[in-house]
Amino acid sequence: MAEPGATLLDRLAAVVGETHVLSAAADVAPFVADWRGNFRGKARAVVQPATTAEVSAVVSACAAHGAAIVPQGGNTGLCGGATPDATGDEIVVSLARMQRVRALDTANATITVEAGLPLAAVQDAAAGAGLFFPLSLASEGSCTIGGNLSTNAGGTAVLRFGNTRDLTLGLEAVLADGSVFAGLRGLRKDNTGYDVKQLFIGAEGTLGIVTAAVLKLFPMPRTRVTALAALASMADAVALLQHLKHALSDRLVGFEVMSDFSLALSRRHHPGSPELLPGHPWYALIQVDESAPDAPLQAAVEAALGEALQAGIVTDVAFAQSHEQARRLWSLRENISEAQRKEGPNVKHDISLPVSAIPAFMTECEAALMAAFPNARLVVFGHLGDGNLHYNLSAPEGVAAQAFMDNAHAVNRIVHDLVARHDGSFSAEHGVGQLKREDLVRYKGSVEVALMRAVKAAFDPRGLMNPGKVL
Amino acid sequence: MAEPGATLLDRLAAVVGETHVLSAAADVAPFVADWRGNFRGKARAVVQPATTAEVSAVVSACAAHGAAIVPQGGNTGLCGGATPDATGDEIVVSLARMQRVRALDTANATITVEAGLPLAAVQDAAAGAGLFFPLSLASEGSCTIGGNLSTNAGGTAVLRFGNTRDLTLGLEAVLADGSVFAGLRGLRKDNTGYDVKQLFIGAEGTLGIVTAAVLKLFPMPRTRVTALAALASMADAVALLQHLKHALSDRLVGFEVMSDFSLALSRRHHPGSPELLPGHPWYALIQVDESAPDAPLQAAVEAALGEALQAGIVTDVAFAQSHEQARRLWSLRENISEAQRKEGPNVKHDISLPVSAIPAFMTECEAALMAAFPNARLVVFGHLGDGNLHYNLSAPEGVAAQAFMDNAHAVNRIVHDLVARHDGSFSAEHGVGQLKREDLVRYKGSVEVALMRAVKAAFDPRGLMNPGKVL
Repeated sequence: MAEPGATLLDRLAAVVGETHVLSAAADVAPFVADWRGNFRGKARAVVQPATTAEVSAVVSACAAHGAAIVPQGGNTGLCGGATPDATGDEIVVSLARMQRVRALDTANATITVEAGLPLAAVQDAAAGAGLFFPLSLASEGSCTIGGNLSTNAGGTAVLRFGNTRDLTLGLEAVLADGSVFAGLRGLRKDNTGYDVKQLFIGAEGTLGIVTAAVLKLFPMPRTRVTALAALASMADAVALLQHLKHALSDRLVGFEVMSDFSLALSRRHHPGSPELLPGHPWYALIQVDESAPDAPLQAAVEAALGEALQAGIVTDVAFAQSHEQARRLWSLRENISEAQRKEGPNVKHDISLPVSAIPAFMTECEAALMAAFPNARLVVFGHLGDGNLHYNLSAPEGVAAQAFMDNAHAVNRIVHDLVARHDGSFSAEHGVGQLKREDLVRYKGSVEVALMRAVKAAFDPRGLMNPGKVL
Repeated sequence: MAEPGATLLDRLAAVVGETHVLSAAADVAPFVADWRGNFRGKARAVVQPATTAEVSAVVSACAAHGAAIVPQGGNTGLCGGATPDATGDEIVVSLARMQRVRALDTANATITVEAGLPLAAVQDAAAGAGLFFPLSLASEGSCTIGGNLSTNAGGTAVLRFGNTRDLTLGLEAVLADGSVFAGLRGLRKDNTGYDVKQLFIGAEGTLGIVTAAVLKLFPMPRTRVTALAALASMADAVALLQHLKHALSDRLVGFEVMSDFSLALSRRHHPGSPELLPGHPWYALIQVDESAPDAPLQAAVEAALGEALQAGIVTDVAFAQSHEQARRLWSLRENISEAQRKEGPNVKHDISLPVSAIPAFMTECEAALMAAFPNARLVVFGHLGDGNLHYNLSAPEGVAAQAFMDNAHAVNRIVHDLVARHDGSFSAEHGVGQLKREDLVRYKGSVEVALMRAVKAAFDPRGLMNPGKVL
């Protein structure tokens, strides 16, 4: 135990051990900027507790000293939610040492994991027991499940399995006063008062620190069909999605839409990518899974896509003939972001809309943007099955990418205002962090913002949990 | 508008019209007792607003007069959550006149409905558009969707589709000060701050009045297989559930378990019920659905149950050969509650457990109960797929049912303490209401209760929303 009158860092060292309190600039550096380099701050120290009890003691010590806390997982967020501010007063609490699988219950189909476990390790632990954890993101090798919970991460299988929220049965969190919310229940039904765990999911560490969770597991997919469909328009993509949901029901796991231009970018920067079905304006990457090992799935998907061809909502179809071909089709999709980055900065949006509103939104938004920024280039792709588009704008040919970024605020305003008019969201899966606080106040009604502030004041009256984020 | 200085009832009449403010004893009577007659109160008046604006004005008027409000839907709850207290001071706000379907979006697969719409009418509206709303309860003809939301209702398809919470994308609610939370978004992904709608779901009207919601719709099931499996033990039932989930994945929609004795009761009071596979201790009623019209579902279910027979976890199997036979099998299950009631009062529990813990719980709980109440009779049935058992105790043969009820508190304590020891819940799907407030304080940790109280104080600082319920 630290002496009375000890400094905060002494107290923290007494809790976690000296080697787990980093304060030298070089040690702290990786924790005070986000991985894309868009956000940069300072920190008094980075603390690395190993257990929930240690997190509790760390938070209590910070509370006693009035020090603000920035919780951090894999530091792969896109909105600056895990980056400290510029004061150098904040304490970063890294959950990276909390990596235990506390329980895996095959009959209940649940896994209990600590916040610092990387997402890929959660997937692997489930697979080791013959079960499936469906959350899947590009950053799954380095992001942590605690970060996924705190941002309610989405990814590529939301159409079938929902967001992280939908995969969570129970939660453990350390509150602003150091007390522990012990909600690690693995129950499919539990109606006993307010479901307070829901508040911590997606709160980006502003209401407490998520330390562990009970997650749902599913039967392992054993038959898989992957196909690429060429489409004449986004309206056809919406019609195809609807058709496949009825024909294939929950076996439809992924439905990613990509514009011709976004695919061309992906191929330009990743030579050797497959070029299937060239010459169409839109493409849908379709994945269909089934847990029975011998299901007649290929025939069912062929029949459904055959009907779509006949109905004229699909122009052409290609099937992956092997796991390797399927993997390469998915790489084509996943490489779009990276390819965009290589082209230089661009104005990105992570929006969602009612699926039915997407075709009209696309037409209206392109017209509005082209009127304001003639010849700017749209790069549109995303999880159409969830109404979630990554809707990005690049500089016109011949205009420097960096110079075009001066328009970012004006572009955001056009896109987000139109999203709001179609009852959509300015942040589908990336959260709010530091980046979208202004949008939150602009697009949420004042009643909803007041409710959020009331929750924040009730859970963190002194405002020490990740201040300056979300609200 | 009512004059300044008008009485509360005058003000309410000015909002909703005189005919929709009931205060005569005979008019008020149906609203101040629950349908089973277990809870009885008094009310100053029953008010029946027709729109969200009227609900808002009603709540504002009550707030101005410091009058407490009891929101009520179909009044089919089981825990007294919609029954006013004995003071005669409370205002019952009935949502029964708010029955509009505000929108039905087939491409987005969502329906927007008002709180007073009966559940069956929501199902019908979806079916009219070729879509499926899966929430299904015994009381679906009279319960309202607002009540389903406020109690996070479960029912028979939770295994596949989740509880009401999982079916809800957006919500509208009138808050304690009369302001309106306008959260009617139909988005599958929306990570923009705290998901405050989650708090109203399952809050039983203690945080505000739910007035409308956006609900998820699904492809209509077009192929269905219904089967009854005879089982030697509850452990085999758990093993069969796990086997079928892997073999049939999400096509497994219902998995209801029934003891031999509970089935015998159902048949005794409903002559003509089918008597399939007699002479086994346990039965599972299995329903498997598929949205494709021509799926080879029967063969898949036969194969899966054939494997279970070979593995010795199932003793015998019968298939419904027609819709009528399937309906009669479900009636057998649904008539258990009614049959129990005809036998006289019994001590009921609506518990949930991790599925893996159920066999051990069953053994331990039966031993504990038989030690305390020799020859009492267990009536056990429920939604095993969700770990939810209706675990009821009837008087021993020859003991008056009413007299046995004196033991209710002691029985509850044995059952709920053991449930807690297995990390289960004392209320799986019925909620808390007035009935289980004591349990909430006993079984939730003090940190969780404090968080709930903080939420309540933040949303309803004057304690006027359904006081005396839940917390």
